[in-house]
Order: sequence, then C-alpha cells, then structure tokens
Amino acid sequence: MSSEQHRVCILAEGSFNIHSAKTAVGVIRYSPHQVVAVIDSTNAGKTVQQVLGFGGDTPIVAGIADAMTHEPDVLLIGIAPSGGQLPTEWRAIVNDAIEARLDVWSGLHFFLSDDSEFAALADIKGVKLWDVRRPRPDLVVGGGRALQTRALVVLAVGSDCNVGKMTTSLELQKKASERGYKAGFVATGQTGILIEGRGTPLDAVPGDFMPGEVERLVMELDAEDCDVIFVEGQGAIVHPAYGPVTLGLMLGSMPDVFVLCHQPTRASFRPEAAIPLPELPLVVRQYEDLMSYYKAPKVACVALNTYDLSPEQAAKREQEIEALLGLPTVDPIRNGNEKLWQAIEPLVKKKLGR
Amino acid sequence: MSSEQHRVCILAEGSFNIHSAKTAVGVIRYSPHQVVAVIDSTNAGKTVQQVLGFGGDTPIVAGIADAMTHEPDVLLIGIAPSGGQLPTEWRAIVNDAIEARLDVWSGLHFFLSDDSEFAALADIKGVKLWDVRRPRPDLVVGGGRALQTRALVVLAVGSDCNVGKMTTSLELQKKASERGYKAGFVATGQTGILIEGRGTPLDAVPGDFMPGEVERLVMELDAEDCDVIFVEGQGAIVHPAYGPVTLGLMLGSMPDVFVLCHQPTRASFRPEAAIPLPELPLVVRQYEDLMSYYKAPKVACVALNTYDLSPEQAAKREQEIEALLGLPTVDPIRNGNEKLWQAIEPLVKKKLGR
Repeated sequence: MSSEQHRVCILAEGSFNIHSAKTAVGVIRYSPHQVVAVIDSTNAGKTVQQVLGFGGDTPIVAGIADAMTHEPDVLLIGIAPSGGQLPTEWRAIVNDAIEARLDVWSGLHFFLSDDSEFAALADIKGVKLWDVRRPRPDLVVGGGRALQTRALVVLAVGSDCNVGKMTTSLELQKKASERGYKAGFVATGQTGILIEGRGTPLDAVPGDFMPGEVERLVMELDAEDCDVIFVEGQGAIVHPAYGPVTLGLMLGSMPDVFVLCHQPTRASFRPEAAIPLPELPLVVRQYEDLMSYYKAPKVACVALNTYDLSPEQAAKREQEIEALLGLPTVDPIRNGNEKLWQAIEPLVKKKLGR
Repeated sequence: MSSEQHRVCILAEGSFNIHSAKTAVGVIRYSPHQVVAVIDSTNAGKTVQQVLGFGGDTPIVAGIADAMTHEPDVLLIGIAPSGGQLPTEWRAIVNDAIEARLDVWSGLHFFLSDDSEFAALADIKGVKLWDVRRPRPDLVVGGGRALQTRALVVLAVGSDCNVGKMTTSLELQKKASERGYKAGFVATGQTGILIEGRGTPLDAVPGDFMPGEVERLVMELDAEDCDVIFVEGQGAIVHPAYGPVTLGLMLGSMPDVFVLCHQPTRASFRPEAAIPLPELPLVVRQYEDLMSYYKAPKVACVALNTYDLSPEQAAKREQEIEALLGLPTVDPIRNGNEKLWQAIEPLVKKKLGR
C-alpha cells in the first residue's frame, strides 16, 4: 500500500484548522500521496495555504461533487467526530464518496467496514474501506527480534503524550532521506498510519501483543534494507495511563538511540492533569536505565514543541534545556531539524560501519 | 459474585494432574467456593487427594450425570484445549451442564456466550455463561487514583512470567486474613479471576486501558475498607513480550511495596527462551527505579518457586538469594508463607497508623 501513489481528498467538514484537524494537517504536511482537495463547507473557496499557513494551492471545497473535479481516488477522513458516532452529514459524504468509486481511509473508532450499508455499497462499487484503527487479526507476541536489525533504530520518547513524537520522527525521516539514507518510519497511531500507508494502531492492540506488533514492523523495514528506522513513539514511560504503550514500543523496537520530545509549557500529564510531569533529568534516566539490559540506548537529542511560546521564549527554553541535559535541543518545526539530525547521523554511520 | 458461595464442579477431562490443569489446581487450592466434584473420566473413582497430594475427599467422576449426584450449581472449565478450539467431547459436557441448569464459568479464549447454541440453551434454561477472559465493555483510562488508597498495596512482580506471582499473592492474602486483617486480592489472569469471582483479564485488554482496569479494581477493594490489597502480577518489566502488561499493573495499582517472585532454575524468558534473564539485583533496581516518582516502593521480600529442586537444593538457593539481595527469601509453598508475611505486616501497620 505504501508504494502506490494516490490522489487524496481529505474530509475535514466544519473543523479544518491547525488545532482541530490533527490528522488532516499531518497528512498534508507529510503524506507521500497528493492531496488534491479538502472538504470543509465552512472554508470552501479558500486554499489550504490560506487556512494553515502552509500547504500551497490545494483547494477547499464544499462536498464530494466539487472534490471530484480534482480527480481523487481516495477519501481520507481527517477529523474525529465528537462523541465517537458518525454524524448524519458525514454519512452522506462517505456514501457519496463510495458512489463516486473512491476508496475510503478512516482513523475513526467507528469502523466503516462494520457498517452493513457502507460495506455493501463498497462491495458493489468495487472500492476498499480501510479502517486503520482495527488491529490485524494475526497478532503475535514479541521475542526481542529487533535486537538483530542492520538498521539503526531511533525511538521517539517523551515526557508526556501529544508533545510531537510523530512530527519529530517524520522530520528526521525526511532529513535522512534528503541526505541519501534509506530511512523508514514505523507508524503506531492513526495519523502516522494514514501518512505512511501501513503501521499498527498500538492503543487498540491487546497488551500481550504490543511489542510483537512493533517488532514485526521494524523487521519489515529492516528486511527492506533501511539504513535507519524512525519509530513513532506514544505516551511516556511513567504516564499513569499510557506508560504500557510506551514500553511496548521500547521492547518491540529495541532502539539503538532515543530522541526525547517535550513541550516546555506542559506541567501535568494529559489528559487528567492531576499528576505533575517528572523533571527531565529523571525522564532521561528512566528511559536509559530501563533499556540498559538490551542495547543500552542513550537519549541523543531533544525535540521541543514550542508552538505556544514567542520566538524569544522558545529560544530561551531551548538554551535552558540544552544546558540542563547537556544534549542538543531544538524545536524542529520552528528552527529546523538539522540539529537533531547532526546528533543521529554519526550513529547511523557507525552502525552501518561506514 | 464474590460474596455468594457456590458448589463447583470442575471440568478437567483427560488432564487432571498438577502440571496440566493449572486453573483446576488453583481453584481447588484457593477458591472460597466448595469444589464438589472434578470431571475426568481417565481418573474416575479416585479422590483429588489421591491425584494431587492435597484437596481431600473430593471425588473425581466420569461426567455430568455422576457429578450431579454431588449437587453442583456451577461447571468451571479448568483446562485449556490444545489448539484453542473446543473439542467435541467437551461441547457435549458443556451442553449437558447447561441442560442440568448449571452456570458455566470459562477461562477459555473461545467465548461460550458467543456460541449461538450454548447461548440459546443457556437462555432457555435460565443459567449464566461467564467468559472470564472477555474484557468489560466500559473500559476507562488510568489516572493515578490508586496513589490515594488507605490500604497498603502489595504488587507481586517477577523475573519472568509463570514463576508464582498469583500463588504468592494468594498465600499472603490467606496469611493476612488469618492474622485479622481485611485482605483483598486483585485478580488479573483467568485462574485468579475464577478463584476470586472478579478481576480483569489483563492480557486481553487494549494497551491504553490496562492501568485503568487495575486502578478500578484496587479502588473497589479500598472502598470495601481493605487493610491490605495484594495485586496479582503478570510478566516481567523487561520481558520482550509481557513487559507492557507488567507496567500496566505497576501504574494502575501504584504499589506501596513489591514482592519479587523468581524460579531459581529459570535461565531465559518464556516462552521464547532466546533472551537470558537479567541478574536479580538489576531486576530489583529496575522495579524500584521505575516507580521512584510515585510511592517509591521497595522490594520487601522474595518468593521462590523451587518445585523442580530437591529440598537441599531449594534451601541452598533460598540462602544464596537472601544473601545476594539482602532480603527475606523463601518458597512459600514448600516452606510456608510466614517469612514473607513478616516482611509485609510492619508496612501494613505503618500505613494504617497502628
């Protein structure tokens, strides 16, 4: 699925903006497919650039009929409905898309392919419904196989969930590719999977099988002769809800090195906000100690998410954290990914014996 | 369910022995319900005592008809079929049990209540089918609520899976109750759930919800005014497959103290056996370090599983590990649970302010 180039129309009805449409924004920024239109009737007539500040001339349209003039072959659902149910208006849009013979890719909790009307219509029209949050049926348990990769395995870890682990991994993959390395990305959340075209929806996988799923994906990329594999992290190791998913990534990917992701203004674990975040030196020590029995990975650099700070504040926090941890520190979206890559590239060369 | 006393008939057809029928043996040893018969036609006519070396005069019978003379109200499936499918002979036994108006409790991967024939017959006969491996539908994410318990929370951790964490927790619960404390048990695997009558099948719970499930059960027991809560551990923290389940238990239960379980003859992680076990001092340090941000629990004592050693070898290993770790060490099944309890009781008193 990842090798085929598609023409994608993104459904973001009523909420196409940088805060509410995380999946849509991620796909526009990083997908190898061509985004040919965005559906949001409340912004119809504008371009993606006008709304997001990036994304070029891609048009925003009112519905499937308008979108079809841009010849998509896929409808990608780029927002989540509040309450988890599919709103009636969206049902009509999905229905129109299938009628127009578009495949539909969905990151919703609600599975399109379990809906008898959608499934029957898709069958008649010969299109595919891809529910990326559905774990594959043939899960296996982990066995530490990722200890054997030829590629350097880089795992993004964090001080909390939702601090920029996917973005950091994709920025590093982009940079590594530009520099001539074969760079893979292991997607572990719905946005990453929709961008990459494969992956595992780790938060929906039963606990026993999380490391095995990550291991399978890492070994797939290693078999494709990647030089470096960037693994999308999730959660944080002592996060009261998501720590186990984080450990599933660590034990499944058996990283050679960590990139630590952090939002300087974050004070407490999301979503509960009842428990303050541990100090960063403890966070670094816990990640490193826990994997000391395997490849003894170290944190090589720190990626900050400073979207809610002024440029001056962001620069100050970069300097402070760099001094505190003694590690290269930068916000890759604000100030570029070169500094992070400089911390990783020597490790890739060493692992490959170059 | 836990407060009602049942008369249980255990199905262990063809495999009632101490090695093959782990669930049956656990229920006979620890269940508060009365086991009135065991079904295994290959041992019919013997008593449980004659086969296991404990369990008294409970008769082993050839089938449901014979079992009914002992007036059970529950059939408990105490063995797992090879291959995961329900053998035809067992189907007939389950069918006979429902016809005889017995509830059926099952720890199988195969869900009886998803079988249309069993479900329809159970409905007609007015009996309950309880599939203990099915997670409840209303899962919630963890929020560190177990930091607030009145009770002392004791989590059994291990150097590997299948080293005696459930048995150790149940032995300690028994001892605490004998000494006049209100002692709870959080069951997290199918045998524990069948013994306790409630719990969560943690290995079947999606990763995001594991801590929340454990937290719910700990807080339930705390609300019932327990003095001490023993949490059944699973896996091992750097186990390449089961580490995430272990961390789910740690973050969900927020233990005050650990009991470390270990089998001295175990050299490699099960089931793969490709990765040697870490040395015990590292195991202790990793458990303690990882939770240092919360209640900073320490390992208070070590429970060994020496079933495959001679008495002399077992005594020698107890002494060696006690000296190595500087912690009270004993095989509670072979040499009694008093030594473990002596390490825990002062902590219960301190927590309760006695």
